[in-house]
Amino acid sequence: MARTRLVVIGADAAGMSAASQARKRLGPDELEIVAFERGRATSYSACGIPYWIGGAVASEDQLIARTPEQHRAAGIDLRMRTEVVGIDLGARTVTARSLEDGREVVEPYDALMYATGSVPMRPQAEGFDAPGVYGVQVLDDGEDLIRELDSGRVERVVVVGGGYIGLELAEACQVRGLDVTVVNRSQTPIGTFDPDIGHFIADAVKNMGISLVFGHAATRVEVGPDGRACAVHTEDGQRLPADLVILGLGVRPNVALAEAAGIPLGASGGIAVDNRMRTQADGVWAAGDCVESWHRLSGQRMVVALGTHANKQGRVAGINLGGGYATFPGVIGTAVTKVCDLEVARTGLSEQEAETAGFCFVTASVDSTTRAGYFPGAKPIRVKLIAEKRSGLLLGAQIAGREGAAKRIDVLATAIWNSMSVDEVLGLDLSYAPPFAPVWDPVLIAARKAFEAVEADVRADARAQ
Amino acid sequence: MARTRLVVIGADAAGMSAASQARKRLGPDELEIVAFERGRATSYSACGIPYWIGGAVASEDQLIARTPEQHRAAGIDLRMRTEVVGIDLGARTVTARSLEDGREVVEPYDALMYATGSVPMRPQAEGFDAPGVYGVQVLDDGEDLIRELDSGRVERVVVVGGGYIGLELAEACQVRGLDVTVVNRSQTPIGTFDPDIGHFIADAVKNMGISLVFGHAATRVEVGPDGRACAVHTEDGQRLPADLVILGLGVRPNVALAEAAGIPLGASGGIAVDNRMRTQADGVWAAGDCVESWHRLSGQRMVVALGTHANKQGRVAGINLGGGYATFPGVIGTAVTKVCDLEVARTGLSEQEAETAGFCFVTASVDSTTRAGYFPGAKPIRVKLIAEKRSGLLLGAQIAGREGAAKRIDVLATAIWNSMSVDEVLGLDLSYAPPFAPVWDPVLIAARKAFEAVEADVRADARAQ
Repeated sequence: MARTRLVVIGADAAGMSAASQARKRLGPDELEIVAFERGRATSYSACGIPYWIGGAVASEDQLIARTPEQHRAAGIDLRMRTEVVGIDLGARTVTARSLEDGREVVEPYDALMYATGSVPMRPQAEGFDAPGVYGVQVLDDGEDLIRELDSGRVERVVVVGGGYIGLELAEACQVRGLDVTVVNRSQTPIGTFDPDIGHFIADAVKNMGISLVFGHAATRVEVGPDGRACAVHTEDGQRLPADLVILGLGVRPNVALAEAAGIPLGASGGIAVDNRMRTQADGVWAAGDCVESWHRLSGQRMVVALGTHANKQGRVAGINLGGGYATFPGVIGTAVTKVCDLEVARTGLSEQEAETAGFCFVTASVDSTTRAGYFPGAKPIRVKLIAEKRSGLLLGAQIAGREGAAKRIDVLATAIWNSMSVDEVLGLDLSYAPPFAPVWDPVLIAARKAFEAVEADVRADARAQ
Repeated sequence: MARTRLVVIGADAAGMSAASQARKRLGPDELEIVAFERGRATSYSACGIPYWIGGAVASEDQLIARTPEQHRAAGIDLRMRTEVVGIDLGARTVTARSLEDGREVVEPYDALMYATGSVPMRPQAEGFDAPGVYGVQVLDDGEDLIRELDSGRVERVVVVGGGYIGLELAEACQVRGLDVTVVNRSQTPIGTFDPDIGHFIADAVKNMGISLVFGHAATRVEVGPDGRACAVHTEDGQRLPADLVILGLGVRPNVALAEAAGIPLGASGGIAVDNRMRTQADGVWAAGDCVESWHRLSGQRMVVALGTHANKQGRVAGINLGGGYATFPGVIGTAVTKVCDLEVARTGLSEQEAETAGFCFVTASVDSTTRAGYFPGAKPIRVKLIAEKRSGLLLGAQIAGREGAAKRIDVLATAIWNSMSVDEVLGLDLSYAPPFAPVWDPVLIAARKAFEAVEADVRADARAQ
């Protein structure tokens, strides 16, 4: 049998998970693997960059799960600092350009793995592309930002956007002793949380000493006489002086190369893939932040940029590329973050998302403690559940609390994954001992209250008829 | 409609959950509720007693969720320090004796709620009923033990049995500065854990400075000239001097009264109940540590003494008693405990239990961290999974680790509850951010490894044919 050739574009989580899985199943005699990476690191944790900037992680080395040398030792022909600038689907070739010397090579492929990740959202408005405006996505961005912050000339930082990354970067700068302001279009940060949970997040940010300018979008970045960003302006006319501007508006899939080549995108803007991570272009596979995923509750296709999905999708693609069989079963929007000592997490649909998806629902929120109330170290936890009217099907969950609170979201994610009703959740045999939970775990109390809300709603409907 | 009369025997978790739920649905005009309690407290956390003894919980008041006065204010006729000594199923009466003055009354009932809890296992061997041998089950036991420990004449404590309660009490005594020895029949403590996880527990106990005498059962308690226990003897001939002996052999359902009355027990020794918590005696309901539950994986009936089940079962009984409809859906053996700073948890079947239930299975264990490896405060965690051969059905899970490890068992409990295969678990959308998990949560890594073990086993079978 002739040796086939797999070309991988992008050597981070998705690309190298795919390459490694394919290599595990097919040796160098059967499969040649060539991987192109624009940056200078492979298989690193982009999610860890804010903690590196804030100093909780000492060096970038700690963020790297697998080095180029380790990948090469596994028989992967890795071309670092080399950017793929074109794909010819008909000829089955890619054109790659060295970022060192500009030289281009054309490389044939039998199978192509597209794993280019995402790029920070950058408003089209004035000044957002000026020097001194930073988006943080890859390791080099982190290094650039740290160099800026270490220079001593930055005192005031304005973060545009109060999403996950925006808040993580705001906290990192605040920890470094800087004067930080976060500008956010909505009244509460991280728009995938309902406002009642979002308020906890806003309070936690404020309590850290970070200024919040909420409810008004940033309209432009003012550029100073030195050509660098010097202030952010908001739609209500505020001028926020800044020595440095950080973009925290989220990311969008990095699909320019795919679009140019004619690899079809989905309606969400990510690359359309099937359950095995095949694109609609023959021989081309894709995974990670650049693809769209299927939401198991709403049925919608959406882009979710998250390292854990990138790793799983890469693994799935790699197993299939290696001749095996695996599928990626979709997402339900689980996410977690920490803001100072506040832990927040969500899964399933928010109220807004549930409405958009056409569900009628009831909600229930409970305040409890992470351990038995009498046990030392018990911390507050609020659990909010969203349950479908009548059926009681669990549609969504959000948690805000202190240490030990947020990871409970995984129980609710597993319940949603299995289409459980809140009544069924209430029956779950969850672990109990005073150092770990009240005798009714907060998750169960919330399920009980949500079930009561479903029943009350049924009774109200019956009375109304 | 005539007012009906509910009599409750035992005013702790199960009994008072039932009474409260029934009261919520039926007012005093419709339902009269009389509750008898032998002790001097209602609705308290028996699980919290070891922490009260150890000093982490300052006073018994903190363990009481609801006082007699609160229950009375809700319209429950509560008779404290009154023991039910007989039930006449034909006449539908109970005979109750005051522990203050010995007077007996005969009270009629329409419905009877039997919630007498459990009693500590006490070997029939010599000396185990001597003064100075303590079982800890109710609040009064805790008070007695604290009085003994405060007396200053106790230096050496021997705990007989290394189950959950035995280890919690051993730690409580050790924290108080006493010389503690635990005697356990098996080589590893808490027999519901597989030995490979049990070794972590044994090490944690040892590291606290507690002596372990494992692999040999205690055969008798030696009684000193003062008539009190003074040493424990083991089957390999050791004599362990003791100023105080604590029983940690677990509990058995407190069913003497039910047996005498002719309320049928199940094969497990607990009271047989249906899904609505009805016993086989007309008009008699039961809940809590005294009943047997259905294990959803093995199909066996078993007694599980745990506050969380008692509360849920009491709620179910009370809803039904109040004219509503609710069922208790069974258990899957989820449990968690803390030994010094080691957290251990389990759910589903152990290897031994899976064998007994007739399953063939593979196992997989992984060592990971509770947070991203590079994130400050990341702690070790071991996850062990037991999966059915071929189907990959998740049969059981055990976790041992440090802070943040054990509560992850609830994800696996929810997965088992929903009959997920390890392959399906691997697809779960669990929360990820560096402060909360590695990019592959330890639960997912374990599922991946278990799935690989299932596949390897299938291949080995194919080759063998």
